Amino acid sequence: MSFRLILLRHGESIWNQENLFTGWTDVDLSERGKEEALRAGERLKEAGFRFDEAYTSVLKRSIRTLWSVLDRLDQMWIPTVCAWQLNERHYGALQGLDKGQTAHKYGEDQVLLWRRSYDVRPPLLSPNDPRHPRHDPRYASVASKDLPAAESLKDTLARVIPYWEGELAPRILAGKQLIVVAHGNSLRALVKYLDGLSDEEIVRLNIPTGMPLIYELDSDLRAVSHRYLASDDEVARASASVAAQGRAR
Amino acid sequence: MSFRLILLRHGESIWNQENLFTGWTDVDLSERGKEEALRAGERLKEAGFRFDEAYTSVLKRSIRTLWSVLDRLDQMWIPTVCAWQLNERHYGALQGLDKGQTAHKYGEDQVLLWRRSYDVRPPLLSPNDPRHPRHDPRYASVASKDLPAAESLKDTLARVIPYWEGELAPRILAGKQLIVVAHGNSLRALVKYLDGLSDEEIVRLNIPTGMPLIYELDSDLRAVSHRYLASDDEVARASASVAAQGRAR
Repeated sequence: MSFRLILLRHGESIWNQENLFTGWTDVDLSERGKEEALRAGERLKEAGFRFDEAYTSVLKRSIRTLWSVLDRLDQMWIPTVCAWQLNERHYGALQGLDKGQTAHKYGEDQVLLWRRSYDVRPPLLSPNDPRHPRHDPRYASVASKDLPAAESLKDTLARVIPYWEGELAPRILAGKQLIVVAHGNSLRALVKYLDGLSDEEIVRLNIPTGMPLIYELDSDLRAVSHRYLASDDEVARASASVAAQGRAR
Repeated sequence: MSFRLILLRHGESIWNQENLFTGWTDVDLSERGKEEALRAGERLKEAGFRFDEAYTSVLKRSIRTLWSVLDRLDQMWIPTVCAWQLNERHYGALQGLDKGQTAHKYGEDQVLLWRRSYDVRPPLLSPNDPRHPRHDPRYASVASKDLPAAESLKDTLARVIPYWEGELAPRILAGKQLIVVAHGNSLRALVKYLDGLSDEEIVRLNIPTGMPLIYELDSDLRAVSHRYLASDDEVARASASVAAQGRAR
């Protein structure tokens, strides 16, 4: 048996444009991001993709990207799950801060370490900080021990992979064609797992926004191959653009 | 214990404008319908409503109305279920026909009977007709005995009320604040049940599009009271407009 999985990173958000650390902050797509989402739907439609079920995070930049795709595919009716486990990496006390100011405050080397390391956490949010997820009703049903106050990429994997194993993998093995619309780092977590990448390899990998990523999986759901639904040129340009924006977003 | 339930009929569709029988045909909202949906979201937001879960049909005019509401409320992330049981009444072989031409073909009295009676079915779709729901992948998991080829309002009740009893009522009793975005006749089915209306009373009732309808329920989930989230004037105008359009849409 072989299986297929489609991953999609949401389009540009308004905080990308404003150069702020985002993480779990629920910022919307920019106009450019909305166009990227529609274009992603167009690419999937042109290639004849149909989905049985859709999964995304509880953050509107991903949900809106998914809605645009489903609208374009005329599949608004398929079962859709919004799961906090697919959220972006939590950026802790850096969320909402300007990246330039942060470098000024903590030093460039420290910021680079937070952004490019696999297992270094940014400064934690205090539980009383209004930005802490315990104050957000969308996480009311999540056990407080599971709610992050800041995450390394390794921490992000530690919630994405159990969700993959518990929810996504069984659906794929049941023969369902899934699309997962998520974030730069929650998708990195999945890609690291599926492709068996090292800690060093995954932090160097940039997933471009708005480009459907097609994984062919074997019967153990390990990646046999992957490709973007776009020309090599488009992927190279988009990856370079994402790398230039920095990975912290 | 008392409970609250919010019902909302989707905005005007493009086939409303074109005077065609719609039923399960998956036509989109008109521009006016999209505005009605946004206005409904605005009304709910102004009144401070928040929802735990949302339910709608598998037809895009309802799903898009729900999406607009959730977007306006900043609650795009709440669990949402698209259920075929909440679809519009199935209009059988009349679906896609012009209402004027239908009256010419079958006679005005017959069309009035199909539109205004409680238990008279329109002509059935043949199983081989491409409009029959057995050819639509969104109903692939529905038992063929449950798929209608045409429905009276009574038939619509016979699928809406079990869905209410099996899915919606238990969630409300569990303390969840629900919004149900659906269609003229699937909402009539719910309203008949909640308010204990007679067969004659329900066919005379017109639910206006885009006006949130707030039900206060007792511990048995029977209606204590209901009101529209709009001025009496607005409701009267909208109901008259819906009645003038005919109930068949």
